[in-house]
Amino acid sequence: MTLSKQTLQYMKSLQLGKFRQKYNNFVAEGDKIVLEIVAQNADAIEKIYAIPSWIATNTRLLAPLAANVQEISPEELKKISGLTTPNQVLAIVQQPAPTLDAQLIQYDLSLYLDGIQDPGNMGTILRIADWFGIRHVFCAPNCVDIYSPKVVQASMGAFLRVHCLESNLSDLKNQFPDLPIFGAVLNGDNIFEVPLSKQGILVIGNESKGIATEVETLLTHRIAIPASKNGGAESLNAAVATGIIVAVLRNR
Amino acid sequence: MTLSKQTLQYMKSLQLGKFRQKYNNFVAEGDKIVLEIVAQNADAIEKIYAIPSWIATNTRLLAPLAANVQEISPEELKKISGLTTPNQVLAIVQQPAPTLDAQLIQYDLSLYLDGIQDPGNMGTILRIADWFGIRHVFCAPNCVDIYSPKVVQASMGAFLRVHCLESNLSDLKNQFPDLPIFGAVLNGDNIFEVPLSKQGILVIGNESKGIATEVETLLTHRIAIPASKNGGAESLNAAVATGIIVAVLRNR
Repeated sequence: MTLSKQTLQYMKSLQLGKFRQKYNNFVAEGDKIVLEIVAQNADAIEKIYAIPSWIATNTRLLAPLAANVQEISPEELKKISGLTTPNQVLAIVQQPAPTLDAQLIQYDLSLYLDGIQDPGNMGTILRIADWFGIRHVFCAPNCVDIYSPKVVQASMGAFLRVHCLESNLSDLKNQFPDLPIFGAVLNGDNIFEVPLSKQGILVIGNESKGIATEVETLLTHRIAIPASKNGGAESLNAAVATGIIVAVLRNR
Repeated sequence: MTLSKQTLQYMKSLQLGKFRQKYNNFVAEGDKIVLEIVAQNADAIEKIYAIPSWIATNTRLLAPLAANVQEISPEELKKISGLTTPNQVLAIVQQPAPTLDAQLIQYDLSLYLDGIQDPGNMGTILRIADWFGIRHVFCAPNCVDIYSPKVVQASMGAFLRVHCLESNLSDLKNQFPDLPIFGAVLNGDNIFEVPLSKQGILVIGNESKGIATEVETLLTHRIAIPASKNGGAESLNAAVATGIIVAVLRNR
């Protein structure tokens, strides 16, 4: 069965944030990520488009979803894919409705992302949260959409387990007035030396501008990753900095 | 002056590894990175192509290089740029001839990259090395070319300070038989718990396949970044893992 013009248009529209928001859907591409959604959150799958060989390999797993699986040719997959090299299968998935567990936040580490713009960084940060069991990632409104195709690819399925909520830091501070708020800034305290609690909110700033001034005033702890004296780089990549700080906070 | 057909062809060829190798050159794009090369390694600059406003802003810095600076229009810059949004200036730069400081390697930490394929990861890893003052990064022949445009962009000028050498691990092991060789593997020892020396070679494996079997047999220490018990991710991004391990090794 060939794809209708309407379907082609719909799929194309989901490459854009405003239509993902309108339909409350997003596109997940590739064998690994689609199988993960099938295993963990099959109810959220609206439709799967896949080439015959992929369907044949996964018949058993797909049985409960059969009504929503459509076989298409590699040429058609290419038409609806956002990837330059489409990978066997693509799914339309309902965006999860993340919830805030106020009790967990009190004794856990959460992230607050202030203006993360690069989709690769956003996906990688969600993957870090997933690895270290961080349940809440708050995103300022100036962040890249976490359901944009490149974020979904880079996050490796983290959106299935990590609760991403749009928020702003002053609201969070009002709701959790006693929670420490850490932020990585130049001239902050060395994370390997300063005593820090295991619970709190870690603020990660924009890739080139860092943490915005109005957000910085809300920090309770100014921290930093120590550079080597003979190092030359001006900064670390935002996702790498997130990984280092989270690893240290989780393992002290 | 408009660009000749020959120049356009030459510039286009430098987007490909085999021509970068043939001419021993690479392309660096953008204000920040070109100014860094002008400041730190002006001799290596073969040519600068820039729009009039950029040249006007930097006249003083460019004075010693004036013979190699060519003014071009934004339209022409677009023709020779590898970026979708060209940024004022582009330089053709001689590839550095990195040297191996055998004495330094004995008491420092070095990296060995086994099949890093993603240009963004490669650039980010070089930036990590630069931040933590790592002087030697050895690349297996199966790594992405460190002078490919995306690596140059992501490395933020690290190639000016970090010595990148193509090598293979067995040769390094023969040359430095007493040096520990750390490798991040599944079920390795927790880097936050196991005692590790500050000197050695840290091996980072391919993004999806990890460290190749023949390379793994050369490791003297199998290490790992502990995942959270309630974490869901199967792995961390290769550059993030590098950042965490290097940060821990540098700060214990």
